Amino acid sequence: MRNHTPEAGIAAFVLLLSVPAFADEGMWTFDDFPAQAIKTKYAIDIDRKWLDRLRAASVRLNGCSASIVSPDGLVLTNHHCVRGCAQNLSTDQTNYVEDGFFARTRSEEKFCPGMTAEILVKTDDVTARVINAGEGKTGNAYIKARDAVIAGIEKDNCAGRGDKFRCQVLNFYQGGQYKLYTYRRYKELKLVAAPEEGMAFFGGDPDNFNFPRYDLDFSFVRLYDNGKPVATPDHLKWSVKPPTAGEAIFISGNPGSTERLLTAAQLDNLRARSLPDYLIKLAELRGRLIRFSSESPDHTRIARSLLFSVENSFKAFYGRQKALIESSVIADKRKTDLELAAKVAADPKLKAQIGDPWADIAKSLVVINLLRDRYNLMEVGPTGSTLYGYAEALVRTAYERDKPNGDRLPGYNDTDLPLIEKSLMDVRPVYPELERLLLEFWLTKLREKLTADSEGTKIFLGKDSPQTLAARLAASELGDPAVRKALWNGGSKAIDASTDPLIVYFRSVEPAARAVFKEYRERVTAVVGPAQEKIAKARFAVYGTGTYPDANFSLRLSYGKVAGWKNGETEVKPFTTYQGLWERATGQDPYILSPRWAKAEGKVDPNTVFNFVTTNDIIGGNSGSPMVDANGEVVGTAFDGNIDSLGGAYFFDETKNRTVGVSTAAITEALRKVYRMNDLVTELIGQ
Amino acid sequence: MRNHTPEAGIAAFVLLLSVPAFADEGMWTFDDFPAQAIKTKYAIDIDRKWLDRLRAASVRLNGCSASIVSPDGLVLTNHHCVRGCAQNLSTDQTNYVEDGFFARTRSEEKFCPGMTAEILVKTDDVTARVINAGEGKTGNAYIKARDAVIAGIEKDNCAGRGDKFRCQVLNFYQGGQYKLYTYRRYKELKLVAAPEEGMAFFGGDPDNFNFPRYDLDFSFVRLYDNGKPVATPDHLKWSVKPPTAGEAIFISGNPGSTERLLTAAQLDNLRARSLPDYLIKLAELRGRLIRFSSESPDHTRIARSLLFSVENSFKAFYGRQKALIESSVIADKRKTDLELAAKVAADPKLKAQIGDPWADIAKSLVVINLLRDRYNLMEVGPTGSTLYGYAEALVRTAYERDKPNGDRLPGYNDTDLPLIEKSLMDVRPVYPELERLLLEFWLTKLREKLTADSEGTKIFLGKDSPQTLAARLAASELGDPAVRKALWNGGSKAIDASTDPLIVYFRSVEPAARAVFKEYRERVTAVVGPAQEKIAKARFAVYGTGTYPDANFSLRLSYGKVAGWKNGETEVKPFTTYQGLWERATGQDPYILSPRWAKAEGKVDPNTVFNFVTTNDIIGGNSGSPMVDANGEVVGTAFDGNIDSLGGAYFFDETKNRTVGVSTAAITEALRKVYRMNDLVTELIGQ
Repeated sequence: MRNHTPEAGIAAFVLLLSVPAFADEGMWTFDDFPAQAIKTKYAIDIDRKWLDRLRAASVRLNGCSASIVSPDGLVLTNHHCVRGCAQNLSTDQTNYVEDGFFARTRSEEKFCPGMTAEILVKTDDVTARVINAGEGKTGNAYIKARDAVIAGIEKDNCAGRGDKFRCQVLNFYQGGQYKLYTYRRYKELKLVAAPEEGMAFFGGDPDNFNFPRYDLDFSFVRLYDNGKPVATPDHLKWSVKPPTAGEAIFISGNPGSTERLLTAAQLDNLRARSLPDYLIKLAELRGRLIRFSSESPDHTRIARSLLFSVENSFKAFYGRQKALIESSVIADKRKTDLELAAKVAADPKLKAQIGDPWADIAKSLVVINLLRDRYNLMEVGPTGSTLYGYAEALVRTAYERDKPNGDRLPGYNDTDLPLIEKSLMDVRPVYPELERLLLEFWLTKLREKLTADSEGTKIFLGKDSPQTLAARLAASELGDPAVRKALWNGGSKAIDASTDPLIVYFRSVEPAARAVFKEYRERVTAVVGPAQEKIAKARFAVYGTGTYPDANFSLRLSYGKVAGWKNGETEVKPFTTYQGLWERATGQDPYILSPRWAKAEGKVDPNTVFNFVTTNDIIGGNSGSPMVDANGEVVGTAFDGNIDSLGGAYFFDETKNRTVGVSTAAITEALRKVYRMNDLVTELIGQ
Repeated sequence: MRNHTPEAGIAAFVLLLSVPAFADEGMWTFDDFPAQAIKTKYAIDIDRKWLDRLRAASVRLNGCSASIVSPDGLVLTNHHCVRGCAQNLSTDQTNYVEDGFFARTRSEEKFCPGMTAEILVKTDDVTARVINAGEGKTGNAYIKARDAVIAGIEKDNCAGRGDKFRCQVLNFYQGGQYKLYTYRRYKELKLVAAPEEGMAFFGGDPDNFNFPRYDLDFSFVRLYDNGKPVATPDHLKWSVKPPTAGEAIFISGNPGSTERLLTAAQLDNLRARSLPDYLIKLAELRGRLIRFSSESPDHTRIARSLLFSVENSFKAFYGRQKALIESSVIADKRKTDLELAAKVAADPKLKAQIGDPWADIAKSLVVINLLRDRYNLMEVGPTGSTLYGYAEALVRTAYERDKPNGDRLPGYNDTDLPLIEKSLMDVRPVYPELERLLLEFWLTKLREKLTADSEGTKIFLGKDSPQTLAARLAASELGDPAVRKALWNGGSKAIDASTDPLIVYFRSVEPAARAVFKEYRERVTAVVGPAQEKIAKARFAVYGTGTYPDANFSLRLSYGKVAGWKNGETEVKPFTTYQGLWERATGQDPYILSPRWAKAEGKVDPNTVFNFVTTNDIIGGNSGSPMVDANGEVVGTAFDGNIDSLGGAYFFDETKNRTVGVSTAAITEALRKVYRMNDLVTELIGQ
């Protein structure tokens, strides 16, 4: 028998990590769900019918997930997924974010500008077409050929179907697979109910990604078509039964992005370079926004949504960085990378096909580090600026539309145009003071990072200061939808003739921005893409299939169970109750009960299961996902992960990674006893 | 002949790095200056007399360096070293920071509250006494014994000499050596001249740590004693000759801190944990302060000094982090650590003395990471808050004074008391709005980092919000010197009876803060100290002496020459001229000429050497240092390093690391032609 050396200990640990079938790991596609594993572990039969019903009731919203929960197009999601809508509907007189929004009749339901809902109806494998298009090409030619074939597939499949469908070619397994996803699209969504933000986000940023938790993070919207509620026979049954410890839970939704197939070198570069830089940028912006918010109630209101998003991103990426630093994932990856490379090298035929993609990735990282600042500052532009986004969309689309479909920049194909137009034409408030802050922050960072002597600073700032230039640009009239409409309709001629300060400015910086984009595409995208495809091919060849692809904001299903965890020395229980809410309320922000809830003590059942945690493997984008039981009935909506779940971007650890949801039992109790939405309850429970 | 393997290449590179005698590396003590190396490299004779004269004219200011440049106590330093004074002397009517300060007669010179000057007069080796005191002790007993003997040495040597002397025991070579430094102290300093900040810090934060540079970063103060200028026969001769390329330059001053003897594990922990955390904190505080500053001219004025310091620290530590990420220093260190450990292990007698200090350091890093947040937030407290500093000094001193000298916390010994009293009694403005911002920021981070459920948050925040508590604490009356005086004189009785909100608060949190401090001392300080001492001992035993100790804000001398460098593909010349200043001025902040300078074009000689760079090895704390030529005449004052110099905290790279100074030629030209300070010029050049 061999000695138990430290190396053997590490090997055993790696082995443990590489058998996902025993952990509740994976964001599985509905086409390829491991039903057998569920049967073995949970003794539950998941058949095609079960899966199809859940898929038909699963909804993708702007950046979120949701589910249909009544026959009349009623959709359950999180409060924070409708927050932008509630804010946009608010006025000087009514604050739907702070006070909540409750339509007690259908006529009180209010249109949410810019919100769309998409339901997946069909998936087709297009891998061969996409891969063949790039065969034998490199650099920009490779990218253009790929972009053109993808644009063609999307266009052909949605042609003649109006804007009721959306066709999207998605990349799975790092380019190992390409699929055409076809969605039924709804653009008329109305807000039905949203609790007071203070209750939905009780505990605010301090409690975000923490548990125990006491958040009423739900909301309802309704799908409309031509002014009428959409009939939705394929909806989920609403359960009022509270979840129980150990019970199996399934979560259907759209996890945004994971990077579990990255190489050790890529993870190491994230840890050392990209993540710290991003966190530092967010931290300063957060500081500026917090102080801005404190200046007046008006500033608090107009910055709230952006501040929430900045703080949420900050904590999420801080958690990722923490996971990379504190876990052994990079060292483990280094071993598995070397193992795969060795197996490729040992097989001459495979080696001839695969080559050395790890060397290409190493080279790409040098370029990523070299271009990071220029790419982020000159091409990506100011974080959070609505006006700059308008200018970019208007100017770029005008110039791109003059070209044939296959020659355009990605994101400006014919199938993309309706979405761009919609997001440009929707009425959304623009706050010049906030815009000024964001533009000034961006220009300051641009000069700081690129230095005053750089070409970039000369083009983007010239002899101005960030303050003076930001003030001038924020005076743009692009906040007016009529101005945007005229520019959109007028095309490149109108753009060239415009004297709007932001259009004039964007015209002047666009060539430099485009040059950086092109350089990034040629030196990074066109190198990393093929290298990752080769690694994916090598993985399939050496280890076979049977695993799940990285998240890409397409529909996935995860499985798990209701379970607490051990946080250091503390056993964390899987549930909280309304009783805990009363106890946690200090009367100080962010632990203030709304007036309705302050009066509800005694009326609401204190023992109702409020929030709960499960072992499901989810990530940002899953917000609002239905949590369903073995019968496919909805028992909650997922709204968060615990702090240990953030490393889920890179690896899954079942002992600590937890999903946090709010129970339908608690939602029903709130609708009945606090919000007096009896008709809505009737619609939900069907009585 | 062996193959030229990559390993051999690395070994050669390491060898190159480990021969400092060939590079202009080192912050040498005056006792141990490598005169022979200078003779070899520059053919200049540096003798004891030369060294003694420079030492007697070298001045330590609060956080800065300076030099005496006339027989009447006139002191040259940087503008940013007197910035606090100029700000404190400003009123609603006069803004000496913005408009500059120019005393054209002695009676116009103005007292700088809180400023002290110290001139090193004597050094004594006390290594044996300090080390013997801790012999055979561990943990808190070890620290107390060490602290007690150090306090005793300082007290005994300064006893009976009034407050005109300061005695300080300093640690060299990570505890390899302890020395008693005796300083002549001056507490009466008056401001003589300070340029407009816009000229001294022309290019602001964007140009900070960059070159080419155009900064008039000088100022003059004068030493007084009982209202009369101090006679200073040992002053430096003022040269108006511009420096020339290749000319040898010596810089005398007080480099604050380097960490060149840290182990690879310590550097790695800095890179992965401590530095990113610190940068993120500074970035958010910076964001809050920038927005605060933009709210009104008054806010700009009151936040300016703190914002400068936050931005300067941010850039400096960002540069350090960058150097750790981009250089091979950690990998190189890993090799030299292993080499030293192997040599210790190979010598049984040495091994018995040294043991395994590297293992102790590894253990200490785990504890540092565990305690970081609690230590920084509960014990270190709010960054930049003057009021909190007063409360801490008053409460801690009151309680510590009741104990025997040797039993007190470090920093509260009898020799420390006059300094604490002085800094408490000096009149300094307190800005409640800024205090509130700083206290709120701190309390927010405390709750965020420790979480709402922690003991720390319960003690420091309780049921309050950071906003409400900060507002209450900022209403403290400790900004009033009379209130502080009464509390100081009243001792622990007065402290216990005080109803000032900040005193009441600090009393309540002090036990928890002290407990964290104690834990940190026992588990980190008491472990790292002896481990580093053992490594220092091992180094002396294996490699002998002959190297320089890490910087510790004591007087050092560096040597080098005037030289540009290669920045990427660009050759950077070593000089700028006044001509470049006119060309760089855009009229936009921070590139605005002051009214005096706008009118000076044509009057000032455009070819005057303005700023210049040298290869000297300096670091923060050296600001204001005299740059002297081979004759010991002052030709400039150092005010910065280039961006590549920031890694100098951990290693020196002569190819890129540069000191930035402003020439005495440029200062003389400015005093004559722009500021019309003819009497001062006469005093300087002695005609």
